[in-house]
Amino acid sequence: MTPLKNDTFLRALLRQPVPYTPIWMMRQAGRYLPEYNQTRARAGSFLGLAQNPEYACEVSLQPLRRFDLDAAILFSDILTVPDAMGLGLQFVAGEGPHFERPLRDEQAIAALQVPDMGHLQYVFDAVSLVRRELDGSVPLIGFSGSPWTLACYMVEGQGSTDYRQIKTLLYQRPDLLHHILDINARSVQAYLNAQIRAGAQAVMVFDSWGGVLADGMFQQFSLRYTQQVLDGLIREHEGQRIPAIVFTKGGGQWVRDIAASGCDTVGLDWTARLSAARLAVNDQVALQGNLDPMALFGGDAAIRTEVRRVLADFGQVGKGGHVFNLGHGISQFTPPDAVVSLVDEVHSASRAYHA
Amino acid sequence: MTPLKNDTFLRALLRQPVPYTPIWMMRQAGRYLPEYNQTRARAGSFLGLAQNPEYACEVSLQPLRRFDLDAAILFSDILTVPDAMGLGLQFVAGEGPHFERPLRDEQAIAALQVPDMGHLQYVFDAVSLVRRELDGSVPLIGFSGSPWTLACYMVEGQGSTDYRQIKTLLYQRPDLLHHILDINARSVQAYLNAQIRAGAQAVMVFDSWGGVLADGMFQQFSLRYTQQVLDGLIREHEGQRIPAIVFTKGGGQWVRDIAASGCDTVGLDWTARLSAARLAVNDQVALQGNLDPMALFGGDAAIRTEVRRVLADFGQVGKGGHVFNLGHGISQFTPPDAVVSLVDEVHSASRAYHA
Repeated sequence: MTPLKNDTFLRALLRQPVPYTPIWMMRQAGRYLPEYNQTRARAGSFLGLAQNPEYACEVSLQPLRRFDLDAAILFSDILTVPDAMGLGLQFVAGEGPHFERPLRDEQAIAALQVPDMGHLQYVFDAVSLVRRELDGSVPLIGFSGSPWTLACYMVEGQGSTDYRQIKTLLYQRPDLLHHILDINARSVQAYLNAQIRAGAQAVMVFDSWGGVLADGMFQQFSLRYTQQVLDGLIREHEGQRIPAIVFTKGGGQWVRDIAASGCDTVGLDWTARLSAARLAVNDQVALQGNLDPMALFGGDAAIRTEVRRVLADFGQVGKGGHVFNLGHGISQFTPPDAVVSLVDEVHSASRAYHA
Repeated sequence: MTPLKNDTFLRALLRQPVPYTPIWMMRQAGRYLPEYNQTRARAGSFLGLAQNPEYACEVSLQPLRRFDLDAAILFSDILTVPDAMGLGLQFVAGEGPHFERPLRDEQAIAALQVPDMGHLQYVFDAVSLVRRELDGSVPLIGFSGSPWTLACYMVEGQGSTDYRQIKTLLYQRPDLLHHILDINARSVQAYLNAQIRAGAQAVMVFDSWGGVLADGMFQQFSLRYTQQVLDGLIREHEGQRIPAIVFTKGGGQWVRDIAASGCDTVGLDWTARLSAARLAVNDQVALQGNLDPMALFGGDAAIRTEVRRVLADFGQVGKGGHVFNLGHGISQFTPPDAVVSLVDEVHSASRAYHA
């Protein structure tokens, strides 16, 4: 493999000295880019895009052609794993994803198994392809939904506003939910390890729905299983350390618990105060975040002001580590020019914090 | 006015000694009660219910006939104030509320004014009626949406998942948003004061959407205006202190800032750890919360376990104050019997913490 030309991102994740704060964006390969929409139209559907390694590779690389980003992330969907378990992933235009066969009875839950990773070969092929095409320019991030977040979709069958089905299970039959989560943790572990073997140079666990859990339940039903994933993860590959990022949307109150899970970096949404989070974790992990994605609608001057506010909130990097990101995925309505301002300001204004 | 037979709720809000932890529930007069649905059917619509003092009184009292709750809350909607401003509140069956004339240009924003409280007389009449009908059994809570939360609906025109319209305004034209928020703060203050004069014995500000703001922005665009409301609130009426509660959904990270706003009690959702929040505010305010409303789907034993967990998290009440509540409104799908278990367990298990 070609040696990395820009390893700023990997170094920051591991709290090693860097000359500036690296940046990438959650959902950076997405609908705000006209070229993404063109490729998606050619692919015919979202699943057609995600399940075809050539298309997935093409859209993964698109944002890097436009913007001076410090990492690439595989274009994929977090629901590939439950789909491989046989739940039947469907995307209906204008609605979110749903499963044809959600887990709604004890029998279905008992029958759940870690899927054959062969069913996910298209993902690993996409990883290999993106890695090769990147040709060492920037590192490639592999990812998965967290065991809890996958379980939300698997039990609800679709997005939810109240998570009533899965929380009824949690409070009524925690044993069944623990069974699902254990299967999910083993599946996610195998999935991420296969991505690492295929060439992913860092991995991220998206705990998108961890923040809907009560304090105490988050630790038992989400974080515990993320930790199980991390415990069995390949942490060194091709002689390089593979950093792991855990991002819990709405998890700011639990940053200390998350930091103790064994990850290298904790991702935070925009409601968190980086200075307080940094104090809470005592620089034992790096932090990733946390600009409000809606700040990108403010125009050049406001974007630059908000970037400087986030950088100042983290402060002098010293022995810590900061990877700049949005606090959630970039909105499909974002003007691409806003990202130019964002990346430029992060790269230029952050140098003072790495003195 | 009849003297109060049960003042446990008011005393707990003010951190005075009580024999047990009082409880009420957000949205306790609501769709989970068959008798509510019957009254609503008679009223013809949600607005017909909210705008008719007799119906509003009837549904406000319904939960108290079934459950041994320690407070009543006025049945109303948080959008009455922008409706009185002339934005044209509409409820379409199966969808949420929306405004016919949302604030989408500078001219509309400049024209915004504190509404004539005469347009809200139906609310104050309902307050007087409920207060009279309660006959001193338990105190009556008046309420309003926070200036920020009202602004979200006024600018978005309806519920939102990304708050793109109002956040674009926030980042692009903060001056215009500050103007809206100032008008809202003066309106909410007048509205709550009129409720107090009509008989409300405590008031609550629902900052339902404060938690979507970035750290820093929450303080500037939400809390600052809630504080403006509190600064001009009638704090004593009929010789009694009128306690004020501020509830910010998703505001657990900001509990210390909220406690400094001048409120007596901070409401918390289920993601917060009461013990940590209590430490952060150093018992300078009481706390209200914070059972996950979905725990009511767990059955009698799980409900009682979760109640005890919340009580234990707050711990020995001592010089603090704890009002039990859900962390958000009760779900329309809740079996009413679950509330019997909830109230019974709070009342019986809490006595040990008031020794």
